[in-house]
Formats: sequence, structure tokens, C-alpha cells
Amino acid sequence: MTTNLETFLAASREIVDRKLNELVPSSATEPQILHKAIRWSLLAGGKRFRPALMLAVGGAFGVETSKLLSTAAALEMIHTYSLIHDDLPAMDDDDLRRGLPTCHIKFDEATAILAGDALQTLAFQTIAEDENLTATIRVRLISEIARAAGTPTGMVAGQVFDLEGEKRLVTGAELEKIHYAKTGQMIRAAARCGAIVGGANENELSCISVYATELGLLFQITDDLLDVTATVKDLGKTPGKDAQAEKATYPGLYGLAEARKLALETHRKCLDALAEIEKPVTLLGEIADYILFRKT
Amino acid sequence: MTTNLETFLAASREIVDRKLNELVPSSATEPQILHKAIRWSLLAGGKRFRPALMLAVGGAFGVETSKLLSTAAALEMIHTYSLIHDDLPAMDDDDLRRGLPTCHIKFDEATAILAGDALQTLAFQTIAEDENLTATIRVRLISEIARAAGTPTGMVAGQVFDLEGEKRLVTGAELEKIHYAKTGQMIRAAARCGAIVGGANENELSCISVYATELGLLFQITDDLLDVTATVKDLGKTPGKDAQAEKATYPGLYGLAEARKLALETHRKCLDALAEIEKPVTLLGEIADYILFRKT
Repeated sequence: MTTNLETFLAASREIVDRKLNELVPSSATEPQILHKAIRWSLLAGGKRFRPALMLAVGGAFGVETSKLLSTAAALEMIHTYSLIHDDLPAMDDDDLRRGLPTCHIKFDEATAILAGDALQTLAFQTIAEDENLTATIRVRLISEIARAAGTPTGMVAGQVFDLEGEKRLVTGAELEKIHYAKTGQMIRAAARCGAIVGGANENELSCISVYATELGLLFQITDDLLDVTATVKDLGKTPGKDAQAEKATYPGLYGLAEARKLALETHRKCLDALAEIEKPVTLLGEIADYILFRKT
Repeated sequence: MTTNLETFLAASREIVDRKLNELVPSSATEPQILHKAIRWSLLAGGKRFRPALMLAVGGAFGVETSKLLSTAAALEMIHTYSLIHDDLPAMDDDDLRRGLPTCHIKFDEATAILAGDALQTLAFQTIAEDENLTATIRVRLISEIARAAGTPTGMVAGQVFDLEGEKRLVTGAELEKIHYAKTGQMIRAAARCGAIVGGANENELSCISVYATELGLLFQITDDLLDVTATVKDLGKTPGKDAQAEKATYPGLYGLAEARKLALETHRKCLDALAEIEKPVTLLGEIADYILFRKT
């Protein structure tokens, strides 16, 4: 990782964490168990990748951070709600997340379901009440994120495709559809939200969308590669889970070498899309490089 | 029920059902199981009480139905998402709802969790994209509903209070707190949304809030009374469940006669609040009468 990107990511994480901490009711507020559960999952030290991406794109379009921060925090709330629900026994049944017990293990299932529900609500509330943005921009951001998070093309639909795809043979095209819905759409939305607040024109928005879509795919390929090659310590969750669950993965489908090649091609498409935007996009390129080479 | 109210409720139900049917992806849209599950729970013939209340309040303030309908549908989506999640095994573990198998029984638990999640998302998306309203009104409605649906004072917090209150002695004040958060806030929000779209002034909004808060309480008291006195056929769900689950209820806490007296007092407060609004509020009074005397 370049020093430039490292500094940016550390600074983003810090301001996003501070904002999240402000936005969520304190652990002393009733019902305490709910707020403790929300804080357990939300403030457990994730990478804050979606917020950072929104801040980076917004930054490239010259937007001040104060206009981006609430929506960036909302993106992380949606992401965390989806992780809490995906980890539930009825879904992926995961006990460990970011090196710590998952929400339903630390608390209980009912609390985990409700913590996820409340985080989704708070995400949309946060954007609706962000006085740094015009109402017109706020509704556009809510629409953008809701479409990426919901159904038929968003994250929730993706989780259904993913559950349906378990324990049967999935083609490469199906795998791409699953991931595009499940994770790609929210990554794309994060980038687009930054561009929308930045007043991007149609062409710029379209290039940012391509960049972020490819970035999301790259993220997934490297995620699958890490599941094969990383250690528990690096990953903070159990590696080898995908193979164990007989989940379709890029290395499972294409083999390690081909999956790595696909990662490289996808990285190239990210950079090509960026090249068409006449803004200072160096940081966005560095994010793509970082995803390609990440170890966690 | 008066003919006037009966006609209004039947007409509301019809236009709200038609709107919901339009807004939700068809059962043929992938992932089919998700959209079937959403439709199963959403279009199973509920009373559409919250949408009707919003339409009635909006109507009293002279608003055309087209400006109310999307938000009214969104209120029902939020309500249905909460029912789907409340019925889950980890929560109230209910097999029957509106006379039919609950979502996780008809489909499975993962699908039920995701159907609820997607309905919440679609509710906020629907309001954000309602072109019949200014963006300023839209963000105000989203904020209003999110606060009523979330935490620390809204519906999700109320469900936690409710689960915590099971199997221990609860005081009358605690019972009121539970219900105000769990159901009262969304009923209040439904009424306030109608008034907000109608451009109500501060005093009018405050009277509508009192009316709807008391109406919500009345709804809960009569719900508890029905659980004691109604039959499976009338109710479409298993009566006596509260007593079986040792849940705190108004008749359980105060006895049947006192609970009925409390219902009457609450009904009186509804009408008193309405009397201060200089708008045609006859229908709103009839709704309070209907809740007092309802058999289902």
C-alpha cells in the first residue's frame, strides 16, 4: 500500500468510526442490550471500505468531507446489518467475524435480528436528516442505496442467490451474478454516492460506475483467493469456510492461476474506466491496486 | 361501524393493495422465492390500518390521495416486515398469522429474514422516489417513519422491551412504554405523515400526535381484550397466546372490567384531541369508535 493511500484509509477509518459512534445510541441508552449489540458489530474495527470509497470518490470531485460523512456512515450501517443477518444460524451460521464472536453468539438470535433491523433503519434516517445536503440530493442517495441494498437487483436478492447457489454446481456467469448483487451493488453505490454529492455529470457517473463495479468484482475474487490462501490470524475469520460449505468461488471454479489472472484483468478494467475521468483520481487507482494485492 | 367508515376503509384497502402489488417485484422476478415470500406476507389481506389512518388524516387536511399513497404503502411494508421478523422462532415463534402459515413456516427462516429486510428497504426507497412530493417532504417523511420504526424510541426498541418483559412482572407504566414503542409510534407516525403532507401547522400536528398516540394505546388495549375474548375464527390467529406466553396484557394487569374502562378513557382522549382541530375530522372520530368496538 502506498503511504498516500495508507494515510487516507487510516484517516477515513477514524472519522467514520467517530461519526458512527456519534450516530448510534450509547450503550447506556435503553434498551441497552440492543445498543450494545449494535455497537458490538458496528464498532468492531472493520476496514470501512465502502465509506472510504465514497470519501475517495467525493474527494476526487472536490467535495468537503462534511457533506459525505453521514452517507458514508450510513453505508457502513447497511453493510454491518447485512453481516449480522448473514451470520445468523438460518443463513451462513458463522460464529466468528473480524476475529470476534458474531452478534448472535455474543448476544442472542433475537437481539441480532433486531440489531440488524435497527441499523438498516438508522442508515436511512441518517441520510434523510443530513442537513449538509439539499433534500434533492438526500432522496437521490437514499434511492441509490436502497436499490443497491434491496431486491430484485441488490444485496438482499444477492444473499438469496447465494443461499440458492450453495451445494449445487454454479457456472461462472451465475457466480458473477451472485456477487454483483450481493456485494458489487453496494460497492458501486458507495462510489456513485460520492460522485452524486460531487455533482458528477452523466459520463463521469457512468465511468465511476464501471470503475466501482469492476472494483467490487476484484474485491470478491481476492476475497475468494484469501479464503484459500490466508490464515485465521490474517483474516480474523475462519478461512477455508467456503470450500467446507461447498460454496462456489472463483478459485474453485477456475483454479488458482486462472482466478489470479481474472483478478489482474479486472484490475485493468478499473484503471481504464478511471482514465476517462478528468479529475484527480490517483487515490482511486491506488485503491484498486490495494484490493488486488491485499492480504486481509 | 358506520357506512361512511366502512366505505372509506374498503376503498383504502383496495387502493393500498393495488399500490403494494405495483411496488413489489412480481413472483416471476428472480429471486422468485424472495418475492413470493414478500407477497405471501404483504398481500395476505391485513386490515391496512396504518395506511388507512394516513389517508384519513391526509384527507382531513384536503390532500389528494395520489400524494399519500406511496407513503401509505411504505407504512404497510414496514409493518409487514416487523410482523415477519416478530413471528420468527427466535422471537415470538408464531406459526399462524391472519389465518395463514407465517412466512418462515410457509417458506423457511432465511427467506423470512430476508423478505423482512427487503420490505424495510423498499419502504424507504418508495418514499424517496415518490415524485408526487417535494424532496423536502420526502426526507421529512422518511425521518418521521425511521424514528418511529427504529431505536431508541421506536418499534425495534419496543420489540426488545417486549421480549425483555416476557415471563416477569411488568408494571402498568412499563406495559405502556412497551406498547408505545412497539406499536404506538408507528401509528402516530402514520397519522403525522398524513398531516405533514397536508401542510399542518405546529398546533394541528401536535393535536394529531395526541389523537394518534391515544388511538395506538386504544388499539393495544382492545387487542389484548380480543386475545382474551375472541375466537380463532374471528381473529385469524391463535387467541389466548398472550396468557400462554405469560405476556403482560391490560386485562392481565388490571382485570377485564378495568381494562375496558381504560379503553373508554383512552377513546375519550382521542376525541378531545380531535375537537381542537378545525378540519373535517368526522372520519377520524369514527376510526376511534371503530377501534373501541372492534371484534377482530
